[in-house]
Order: sequence, then structure tokens, then C-alpha cells
Amino acid sequence: MPPKLGIIAGGGDLPLRLVEACRSAGREVFVLGLEGHADPEGGKLPVDRWSRLGAAGAMLDALREAGVRDIVLAGRVRRPSLAELKPDWRAARLFARIGARALGDDGLLRAVTSELEGEGFRVVATQDVFRDLLTPAGNLGAFAPDAQAEVDIARGVEVIRALGHLDVGQAVIVQQGIVLGVEAIEGTDALIDRCGSLRREGPGGVLVKMSKPGQDTRFDLPTVGAVTVERCAAAGLRGIAVEAGKSIMLDRETMAGAADARGLFIVGLEVPQ
Amino acid sequence: MPPKLGIIAGGGDLPLRLVEACRSAGREVFVLGLEGHADPEGGKLPVDRWSRLGAAGAMLDALREAGVRDIVLAGRVRRPSLAELKPDWRAARLFARIGARALGDDGLLRAVTSELEGEGFRVVATQDVFRDLLTPAGNLGAFAPDAQAEVDIARGVEVIRALGHLDVGQAVIVQQGIVLGVEAIEGTDALIDRCGSLRREGPGGVLVKMSKPGQDTRFDLPTVGAVTVERCAAAGLRGIAVEAGKSIMLDRETMAGAADARGLFIVGLEVPQ
Repeated sequence: MPPKLGIIAGGGDLPLRLVEACRSAGREVFVLGLEGHADPEGGKLPVDRWSRLGAAGAMLDALREAGVRDIVLAGRVRRPSLAELKPDWRAARLFARIGARALGDDGLLRAVTSELEGEGFRVVATQDVFRDLLTPAGNLGAFAPDAQAEVDIARGVEVIRALGHLDVGQAVIVQQGIVLGVEAIEGTDALIDRCGSLRREGPGGVLVKMSKPGQDTRFDLPTVGAVTVERCAAAGLRGIAVEAGKSIMLDRETMAGAADARGLFIVGLEVPQ
Repeated sequence: MPPKLGIIAGGGDLPLRLVEACRSAGREVFVLGLEGHADPEGGKLPVDRWSRLGAAGAMLDALREAGVRDIVLAGRVRRPSLAELKPDWRAARLFARIGARALGDDGLLRAVTSELEGEGFRVVATQDVFRDLLTPAGNLGAFAPDAQAEVDIARGVEVIRALGHLDVGQAVIVQQGIVLGVEAIEGTDALIDRCGSLRREGPGGVLVKMSKPGQDTRFDLPTVGAVTVERCAAAGLRGIAVEAGKSIMLDRETMAGAADARGLFIVGLEVPQ
């Protein structure tokens, strides 16, 4: 039996899925929910302890008391401002060291990870706990991108690449060669909704999601699920392209079913490094 | 007296200002309004002839009949899809030649410009007709960016640079090092409004607008005006940074007055190439 798993839970469906997966495998969990991020639907996620993101000292204590050594950072945590963080002395020291002023999402998570490891914890990847979560290469459902969609995907990859090393967005929507929208802090759902009203006549656009170049695959991998498919369909998109092996697909079968029903393609991209 | 000026009018305030400037200088104009783009307030711009963007043949004929040789492309024209364009044979030939499938805004305007010049017209810059339009270096009003704002501006410049050579956006909003939003096709107004609801606690963000690397300064220079200031104030931003010498400021005095009244800074950036 693997040891109890500490889950630091951010937003989205991923933390709950992880808890369910651990339970069916008989693995104990300790869920530390980040206030304002975790349990977006309210009451669904079994949170053992709540914490502010800025309360680093209390978080470390709680994890230690719970007796966990392996920790997963699951779900998205969008960077708050320093003012919102209200860092305790522990967090303040961390921020002072890393210089939080000009920091992206990844920089923050990387710093938190090394802090946790410095305290003797082991930070593991969601996909190492919950197998078969990584996006496979190729078409997931019945539909495949046509020539125009391939051009749009290539352009999307190019834009995400350019932004990726700046630690900004991981998603872009392209229609007929036109970049309709680029994701920053608003998240992919808001991006999709916005592009619904920006779309042009003719063949619809494609959502492209990729990891950042050199991204630590232990946190914040791009994630898509059945709700992503529904949202894309509602916004008039024709398909979804996500990076194979470096993104997470929740409910793969439900996703494929929804995509087939809506006539959307879902493709796992093999992107050369 | 300079010869009659042909104005191909896109969106925003710029075409009307140009017409007014020509009139006060006693220069004749011929205004060709692009349907769906020009005269956003309806009835304010004196349009001599309307045309669809895709009706290249009719546009060329109208400009020739009007007896103009110098032409300004004024105001923003966001790229429509090929389906919306409904190109006439002339436009279709142009698109076939340039391969419109994966084209950004600039690519399209560049192609249109060289087409016009191939027909014997001379495409001139707005700022060559309407002097004192280019953003000067330094602080425009009473306020100046503080240290955090300088960091935010530097990060914004970095992000626009990364995207610029891909011909995507020219604007970004950064707050306390966090990139709140990146402009794609939605335009700067929509970007500002969206970031109003994404803002974090603490010192507000900065709008950064720059030209694209290697941009042809005859069209689509980043433009700000008094309405930009009002919008930024409403969204909780602390200031506006635009590239000196490569962007257009409409109503400079009104802008400075509005910024002073709202406590915003407006700075013309000298960005090394």
C-alpha cells in the first residue's frame, strides 16, 4: 500500500478526481484546500484543512501533523497579488528570496515546490499517482482536423511557444489563421467564451493548449475535460488540440463521446521539442 | 496646396481627426469608408464612398475616379475571415498570391499597400499628414510610473515583443508582475474592460501598447486617446505606457487633463530596438 498522499488542492476538477482515484485504490489522502481556489462547486471536495495561500507556515505544520511525505499540487492556482496573499513570515521570507515582483505562475509554483522539498517532503506529479491521465497522441474521437484546422493548430503552437518561455499563457484560439484570443490570467474557460463572440464566418476555430517550454510536469499541466468540449462547441469551435504526454485529459471517454456528438475533433499533438 | 488625399477609413477616431486636420489645412479629401469598420459612431465621418473590404476592384476604381494619388490607411481594420470577405476577383487574386490562410493583420495590410502601389498610388503615413500625432518620449501629464509600475512596464514590453513578430497583439496589461491580459483580435478596449474584473488587490495595473517589431509605420500604429484614459481609470489601472515615436496619441491635451484628473500616468517609452 503506498503511503498517505498529501493533496494541496487548487481549482478545477482535478483534485476531486485525484481523491476518488486514491480512494478506489485504497490509498489514504490528506486534502489541504487553498481558500478561494479549491472546491469550486462547494462541498464536493473532502477538504481536511483549509489554508490561505500566504499561510506557508501553517500549511507546512498541517502537512507534517497529518504524517504525509508525498505531496501533489493538484489544480490550478492563479497567482494572487502580494497584497491579497497576506504572507505570513514564512511565505514573506520565501517571496523575499525569490523576488516575487515579476514572477509568473510557474516561477511561484517552482519556488513553493523547492520550499516543500527543503522541508523534507517529496513533490510528486498527479499523473504518477493517477495513471492514464496524460493525453495520448492522435485523434481521440471520430473526427480529425482538416487542412485549415492543421494550419490553425500550427499557428496556435507558434504563439504559445513564443509566450511560453515568458510564463504567461498556455492556451490560444485560432480561426482561419486569425488568432482570436490569447490566454493570460483569465483561464481557458473565459478565453473560450470570449472567442465565441469574436468568431468570424466560415469554418470555426481551434483551441490549442500546450505546456510551457521546460515546464516542470509536476504541476499546472494544461488540463481539458468534458466541460471543455461543451464550452468549445457552444463557442462555435471545431476542435481541441492538446499536447500529447504533457497535458491532462479528465474523463477521456466522456470527452470523446461529447466530441463525437458535437462533431468536434480532439487531437493529442506530438510537438517536437 | 498639397494634392487631394484619399483616406481609406477603418475603425476608431483616427479617420475623422484626419479629415478635420485636412480641412483646417484646406486640403481636399476623398473618404472611402470600409463597411462595418468606419464611422463607428454613425454619421460623424463624411464618407464619400462605402466599400466592402473584399471589393478591391471597386475600391481601386473609386480612388482613381476621385483623382487621388496619395492614400492614407487610417484606423484599425481587424482581419475578417475569407468567408466574410467575399472577395471580388481582384481581391481573390491578391489573396491567392499572398496565401491568406495563415496571415496576421500586418501581413494583410502590407499586401494591400503593395497592391495599391502597384496600381500607381502612393501610400503615406497618417503622421506625415497630421503632424504632432506621434507619441513624445517621457511623461505626458503630472504623474510618473513608480518602481512597481516600471517593473510591470518592462514585463509588458517583453510580452509584446515575444508576440509582435508573430503579428498578433500590440497591447498587454500587467499588474504587480502578473500578466492580466494579452490582446489578440478583441481590441484594446475589450482588453481593458476584461482586465477590470481580473485585477488583484493592491497597486493597479499598467496598459502597455507598442508597435510590432519591423512594423510598417504607415498603417495600424498603436493609438490611444482620451477615451483610453477614461477606460483605464474605470478598470482600476494606474497608467498607460506607449511607445514613443511609434504610436499615435489623439487629443494629447485632453488626454493629459483626463490622466491628471484621474491620477493616472501616461508615459512615452523609448524602447531600444
